[in-house]
Amino acid sequence: MAEIPGEPSRIVTPPSGTVIPRFAGSGTFVRLPEIDRVSDYDVAVLGVPFDAGTSYRPGARFGPMAVRQASRTLRPGFHVELDSTPLERIQVVDAGDVTANPFSIDEAIGQISAHAGELVTGDRKVIAIGGDHTIALPLLRAAASQHGPLALVHFDAHLDTWDTYFGAPTTHGTVFRRAFEEGLLIEDHSVHVGIRGPLYDRGDIDADKGFGFRTIRAGHIDDLGIAGTIQAITERTADLPVYLSIDIDVLDPAFAPGTGTPEAGGLTSRELLRILRGLGDLNLVGGDVVEVAPAYDHAEITAIAAATVVFDLITLIACRAMP
Amino acid sequence: MAEIPGEPSRIVTPPSGTVIPRFAGSGTFVRLPEIDRVSDYDVAVLGVPFDAGTSYRPGARFGPMAVRQASRTLRPGFHVELDSTPLERIQVVDAGDVTANPFSIDEAIGQISAHAGELVTGDRKVIAIGGDHTIALPLLRAAASQHGPLALVHFDAHLDTWDTYFGAPTTHGTVFRRAFEEGLLIEDHSVHVGIRGPLYDRGDIDADKGFGFRTIRAGHIDDLGIAGTIQAITERTADLPVYLSIDIDVLDPAFAPGTGTPEAGGLTSRELLRILRGLGDLNLVGGDVVEVAPAYDHAEITAIAAATVVFDLITLIACRAMP
Amino acid sequence: MAEIPGEPSRIVTPPSGTVIPRFAGSGTFVRLPEIDRVSDYDVAVLGVPFDAGTSYRPGARFGPMAVRQASRTLRPGFHVELDSTPLERIQVVDAGDVTANPFSIDEAIGQISAHAGELVTGDRKVIAIGGDHTIALPLLRAAASQHGPLALVHFDAHLDTWDTYFGAPTTHGTVFRRAFEEGLLIEDHSVHVGIRGPLYDRGDIDADKGFGFRTIRAGHIDDLGIAGTIQAITERTADLPVYLSIDIDVLDPAFAPGTGTPEAGGLTSRELLRILRGLGDLNLVGGDVVEVAPAYDHAEITAIAAATVVFDLITLIACRAMP
Amino acid sequence: MAEIPGEPSRIVTPPSGTVIPRFAGSGTFVRLPEIDRVSDYDVAVLGVPFDAGTSYRPGARFGPMAVRQASRTLRPGFHVELDSTPLERIQVVDAGDVTANPFSIDEAIGQISAHAGELVTGDRKVIAIGGDHTIALPLLRAAASQHGPLALVHFDAHLDTWDTYFGAPTTHGTVFRRAFEEGLLIEDHSVHVGIRGPLYDRGDIDADKGFGFRTIRAGHIDDLGIAGTIQAITERTADLPVYLSIDIDVLDPAFAPGTGTPEAGGLTSRELLRILRGLGDLNLVGGDVVEVAPAYDHAEITAIAAATVVFDLITLIACRAMP
Amino acid sequence: MAEIPGEPSRIVTPPSGTVIPRFAGSGTFVRLPEIDRVSDYDVAVLGVPFDAGTSYRPGARFGPMAVRQASRTLRPGFHVELDSTPLERIQVVDAGDVTANPFSIDEAIGQISAHAGELVTGDRKVIAIGGDHTIALPLLRAAASQHGPLALVHFDAHLDTWDTYFGAPTTHGTVFRRAFEEGLLIEDHSVHVGIRGPLYDRGDIDADKGFGFRTIRAGHIDDLGIAGTIQAITERTADLPVYLSIDIDVLDPAFAPGTGTPEAGGLTSRELLRILRGLGDLNLVGGDVVEVAPAYDHAEITAIAAATVVFDLITLIACRAMP
Amino acid sequence: MAEIPGEPSRIVTPPSGTVIPRFAGSGTFVRLPEIDRVSDYDVAVLGVPFDAGTSYRPGARFGPMAVRQASRTLRPGFHVELDSTPLERIQVVDAGDVTANPFSIDEAIGQISAHAGELVTGDRKVIAIGGDHTIALPLLRAAASQHGPLALVHFDAHLDTWDTYFGAPTTHGTVFRRAFEEGLLIEDHSVHVGIRGPLYDRGDIDADKGFGFRTIRAGHIDDLGIAGTIQAITERTADLPVYLSIDIDVLDPAFAPGTGTPEAGGLTSRELLRILRGLGDLNLVGGDVVEVAPAYDHAEITAIAAATVVFDLITLIACRAMP
Repeated sequence: MAEIPGEPSRIVTPPSGTVIPRFAGSGTFVRLPEIDRVSDYDVAVLGVPFDAGTSYRPGARFGPMAVRQASRTLRPGFHVELDSTPLERIQVVDAGDVTANPFSIDEAIGQISAHAGELVTGDRKVIAIGGDHTIALPLLRAAASQHGPLALVHFDAHLDTWDTYFGAPTTHGTVFRRAFEEGLLIEDHSVHVGIRGPLYDRGDIDADKGFGFRTIRAGHIDDLGIAGTIQAITERTADLPVYLSIDIDVLDPAFAPGTGTPEAGGLTSRELLRILRGLGDLNLVGGDVVEVAPAYDHAEITAIAAATVVFDLITLIACRAMP
Repeated sequence: MAEIPGEPSRIVTPPSGTVIPRFAGSGTFVRLPEIDRVSDYDVAVLGVPFDAGTSYRPGARFGPMAVRQASRTLRPGFHVELDSTPLERIQVVDAGDVTANPFSIDEAIGQISAHAGELVTGDRKVIAIGGDHTIALPLLRAAASQHGPLALVHFDAHLDTWDTYFGAPTTHGTVFRRAFEEGLLIEDHSVHVGIRGPLYDRGDIDADKGFGFRTIRAGHIDDLGIAGTIQAITERTADLPVYLSIDIDVLDPAFAPGTGTPEAGGLTSRELLRILRGLGDLNLVGGDVVEVAPAYDHAEITAIAAATVVFDLITLIACRAMP
Repeated sequence: MAEIPGEPSRIVTPPSGTVIPRFAGSGTFVRLPEIDRVSDYDVAVLGVPFDAGTSYRPGARFGPMAVRQASRTLRPGFHVELDSTPLERIQVVDAGDVTANPFSIDEAIGQISAHAGELVTGDRKVIAIGGDHTIALPLLRAAASQHGPLALVHFDAHLDTWDTYFGAPTTHGTVFRRAFEEGLLIEDHSVHVGIRGPLYDRGDIDADKGFGFRTIRAGHIDDLGIAGTIQAITERTADLPVYLSIDIDVLDPAFAPGTGTPEAGGLTSRELLRILRGLGDLNLVGGDVVEVAPAYDHAEITAIAAATVVFDLITLIACRAMP
Repeated sequence: MAEIPGEPSRIVTPPSGTVIPRFAGSGTFVRLPEIDRVSDYDVAVLGVPFDAGTSYRPGARFGPMAVRQASRTLRPGFHVELDSTPLERIQVVDAGDVTANPFSIDEAIGQISAHAGELVTGDRKVIAIGGDHTIALPLLRAAASQHGPLALVHFDAHLDTWDTYFGAPTTHGTVFRRAFEEGLLIEDHSVHVGIRGPLYDRGDIDADKGFGFRTIRAGHIDDLGIAGTIQAITERTADLPVYLSIDIDVLDPAFAPGTGTPEAGGLTSRELLRILRGLGDLNLVGGDVVEVAPAYDHAEITAIAAATVVFDLITLIACRAMP
Repeated sequence: MAEIPGEPSRIVTPPSGTVIPRFAGSGTFVRLPEIDRVSDYDVAVLGVPFDAGTSYRPGARFGPMAVRQASRTLRPGFHVELDSTPLERIQVVDAGDVTANPFSIDEAIGQISAHAGELVTGDRKVIAIGGDHTIALPLLRAAASQHGPLALVHFDAHLDTWDTYFGAPTTHGTVFRRAFEEGLLIEDHSVHVGIRGPLYDRGDIDADKGFGFRTIRAGHIDDLGIAGTIQAITERTADLPVYLSIDIDVLDPAFAPGTGTPEAGGLTSRELLRILRGLGDLNLVGGDVVEVAPAYDHAEITAIAAATVVFDLITLIACRAMP
Repeated sequence: MAEIPGEPSRIVTPPSGTVIPRFAGSGTFVRLPEIDRVSDYDVAVLGVPFDAGTSYRPGARFGPMAVRQASRTLRPGFHVELDSTPLERIQVVDAGDVTANPFSIDEAIGQISAHAGELVTGDRKVIAIGGDHTIALPLLRAAASQHGPLALVHFDAHLDTWDTYFGAPTTHGTVFRRAFEEGLLIEDHSVHVGIRGPLYDRGDIDADKGFGFRTIRAGHIDDLGIAGTIQAITERTADLPVYLSIDIDVLDPAFAPGTGTPEAGGLTSRELLRILRGLGDLNLVGGDVVEVAPAYDHAEITAIAAATVVFDLITLIACRAMP
């Protein structure tokens, strides 16, 4: 539904902060129109307030609320680094929240799959705001239903390819093993970025490699540099359809205190944003920003970082759609 | 537009927290419908994010956002103390936010007057969420445009009848003097409740009396008791049209840390709510809850108290409209 | 296993804060001995870090940790109001934490039932630190396994007798309906204290009455007074075996910000403690303090209140056991 | 040095908040003149930033800074309840801070004694801002050097008459035993108000009684009422010279989270202020407000309460000096 | 008024933290003498508590208070990196706060211009502590009144060269356009450092270039390195008189949460300080550190960073004045 | 007592977080066994809750409690960067807390020396959790009692080689001068890393050099790089017995707000961890992590960083003991 050259634009954009103060007006992501107020859309921002898959600090159920609120600080007219006016190029909407059963992981996954599945028909794309990382499984299912198996670019402190926790097969630490087993991921084309910290067991790493992931540990970024990291990711995904999943705990706890399983030694927000902004060549078909737990945040710094990342994902899609 | 007996109800109510988790779904006040999604309404909840009239700690511009978010904790189906299902009796909507110029008190007052004035035509009523107390002046103007001069019931730690600050005639400490001078208030029928703390000058009290206010100081409530306080208010207002203005700093800082001019020695939230719930006989034509400054709040306790008060004001109107 | 007159005491008591600073030494509740370091015990303090039954703010899984830490502020040698040296009269231990599956309410309930069931054999008693209120069901089962059906004294802002949430029969809002249905509660001898706030539905109150509960709403305490409230509770329970369940949200959010479903208009900590200290006649066979969610606490005030309540429950048992 | 009738006032008062915004200008207590900027004074407010006598949470060394900053919220022109313009009646100054050795309790006590001793010559009085309660000993010494033995009115959660901690004779929990032993206190004319919480040992109470203290426990205030409490204090002190020492932890942690040894079940700020304002008959010769530990405060609520208390002490002195 | 060789020094320096503990004593910036306690000065630190020009989070009116308090942590005897004992070389004073009307931007600007103008006569210099960035305009006027047009070195996340907000010509986002239009800035010799984040409009960048600014975006610093950034700045300013304006939001929100318009992806405090310390060749004639909003700070980290920057600016001036 | 090849392992390891949730179970460091629950040990983690040697913000007495609690986030099975399963290789225990007199630095030092001295007999080693830096002196004494004089590797923002504070010879700012004077340190083999900030006096640096320290200032790390820094440290210590002392304030306040003397411009947690992980060649015989003051922490980020460092120190010892 992107803008048609020669036609007057009918894209609905957020009001400018110079017309309605940023602290006023709609509470949607960057004050985007609600999904049912436009006739069609290219990208839907979807809240997934679910955290029953959390192994340590819960609270990411309040993530969508916090990230939307923090997005008020953004001025989404022009993305300087990507030289784009994304919200004028494609129609982006706020699709509200999925209703996900807080007492049943299985039912919630079904609800998210179904809801996201409806949103992604055609070439429409979903950028989700979590919620804990469990939500990536149904979102991958929805994306794969349109694009087939996907290359995963995964920013996180943790691999999230453990097998089970307490008998539960699908939790925020096991989603990508499940996704691989389901055939949602293309073997040997996925990559973890920012991994760090000790593990329950040495075997966790070997298992992960067996699923065809490459891992760029946090300390490795010092050696690769930003450009090298971008190149490593891009080579990995080639022009395959990519799902980009960003656990906000990829940032150091100094930059993202408001998260459920903080891990010292992480990325700075500048590193993360610079890497993301180098991924313009990716064939991005979906993504999420997860694990913002606002009860642990301070002055919204985690939520602001997450909102900035969501805006960057939207802009990456816009740049490729309407270069 | 209240429910018509014999007709099937067409009132739009918020979704139940047992169907959509309270932490999900619409970000409006208690997830009420937005104003343009129903054909008409009895009461509109209006955000007034404006704080340029603040003399000490600013930040009430984020009050509407915070109170709406905190209202998620409420289960607005049934008000036990008032024995009412208010949102099924009258149509209540969230009217969004006024756009108020943050750099010009005068222009902002005009914008609020105009916006609220449009909302209150017919017998429609506005309950406003501030913003600092400056906003009470334009809201009183709007209410008086429909009902003529009003009796003011004013819960606050401060009189707010000072003359000017730094030459500015209309600030959060001077609004009720301005309102009196404009003829918006009926002489000798207004009352301050919860006043406390030292003053700039002994003359401030005399001036206030000259405007026809009665004052029930915070410590006085111990002597009057809850019932006596209710009686004193009710006698004061008789059946005159009443505007009820609640500065959240009427609560002690322990109950409302998130405010701009906290004053030790205030009311408990139980006292405030019990008094409000005794005001069912009031002919309430408008009201506001102001001075929630979330940057100073903790665990949303101030915003939750304020949201509860807003819901009580709605229920008081519903009870009288549809007893 | 209480102290035998004529025998030298072999009760193990915590070290005094005048010998080991309170901020040092064991991290057990008031630095009590761990359960396996004494030969037997009268009362076991049991942590139940489980919060998957939470409907709004999660985080009570960190409650046992927070309450134990806050208990360091207590000087548990002598309880002045109850005129008792409880830890010298009966052997109290810290039984550590139950392992409760964070991803399965049903499995967790079974684990808690089994663990508590082992602890309560003989006339031993458990005082539990939650965790969310879901844990009361298995704890009631354990207590009833020794004492038969119980009278429930329930301090809370909420009734917790709803039917189901999202199809889940056992959550923190439904436990006492389940307990009643299971025959764990003696009809017409239970009482809720401190209830307040609006409800999803008017029918919730009627249902609750149908289960034989009496309700003392928060505002009602003003009328009854402390003594009247104590009397109402005591009359209700007579000398039946009593389970005392205290949701910390019975306190106003000013006193207990660190909780999952705060409700304005609650009790002060002085009111709660004075009521509890009047319950010396109760035949207390078990109890819990639940819903401390430390991520929302400030300066440990919620956890300190909860720790004080736990110590009061212990002392009430000690007073009756060894008057 | 109080105002002389018939003479033009030469008293230096703080600038009004209507002339210099309260958030600007001098950082002294309520922006009083510094001691060396006036020729003489009646009352000196003295900071005593010392906390090495703390047994649990340290940090009261930052109390003077925090209370001075919070005092900006006060409008010290007119005290309504006491019907006084205190700062126009007597000359009050900010005497800055004592330099007290943070590594030696003994040396610090000597420094405080010496400094305060110089300030209290003539009929000049000191109101001190602590610092932990240890500082009361040297301040009592200074006051007694002018007035002889004193009646102590002591608001606190704790008796502070323990003997020693870890061999240290003078700490924040032992000062009043030391004071009694030194003959600084008049036997049978002192009173503790607000005491609560368990003790290390039953004997602590008996010891305290032996020193001639009467104790009004926190719960006892419910029975006495405000007026009864005032009467009990006033009868106790008669017209003897009184030292009034207020540990901010007399307030409940909800009202004073920012303190070192919080104790649930305390006074509200309204109770404390109403009691203080009833003590106009006291022959007040000195006082302190101690144990504000701002690292644990939130939104300055503890410091604001403490600043209000300091202002009340000043006003009580002014009222008696210049009725 | 710098130290005269051969003459005994009469410069008044702050007391050492080894003599008066840093948490005690004067509340001026690093405990400098107040301006009227010395006969003359070289540099005056001036608080400008004004934030009515803020577009998002207000609160910088409390910035001077917070930065002065945080400056207590500094040991200002010897600046290691700059190898200087600045406060022994030149006389630095704390000039207190400007009184600036909180309700009128225009009047406030006039007050600041007048006050700063008086302070900068002779070769005296002002380093201001904001306050929001609006204050830079009157401070530039004062500096230019002595030195003529200036080169601006501007550290910030934002350009602050927008045109108007809501009709207001002078706000914290428009000051440098106003300054350029007034002829206060030398064309083509100014530089922005640390700029990042999206914009309202693509045209904002072009406009900014039109005013002759060079921009070093935050990500660009990775490429230039610290030395390259220093060089770029130094080349830009040559030996022209420089005004150095530092919006604390140039730091990443992790380093400066306490600010009004945080922007992810910023500088670390080490980067900022290393760049500043490389600017010894600048002909610095004035400067400011603005936008510290302590309500959003944590553990004073923002204020400590700002205080360190103020001390660095002082030292840079001292180094050049008395190399 | 390390694992003997060919023998079945009898090492007691913590329970896995996949068996007992990390938020449940023992409160010891990473849930290690208490010292008296195993027959012997290689490394003891010892809490030293003492902060009476603090010159600015106290509160590190709560450091051991906070670091143990934060250690729950760690998964201590496998250290990826060091390729080790440390807790399976050597027996590590939690030795609880030293009782250290909070009112007497001298007595406390004696208590710590004695307690640590008992723990380090044989080739057993202690890793201490402070507490303020004063504790390093008695810990050095204990280590030197087994190994003779030591090379010190000291990460800190401050030199800690001042002479005295207020006459006190042993405080957190003077310990290493005392240690040098006592002959505990090998001359010319010690190194400070991360030093920054201004000083009381230029002479402080010269004095420090006189004690044979080399200093790598924080900014110097940019020039040396991680590898260069590691090399500089390793060259300095050669194969001498090393004591590794880490003041958490070596991290920037963004990464470690919860500390007593924060200093802008510090290390990131990634830098610190990468340097530590390069020190595998060190002959590490003891160490400490000090100055965690949790009252100033947020979301446990400081304590998590400190816990990670403690785990790294343990792993470094394990790697060398059982490569």
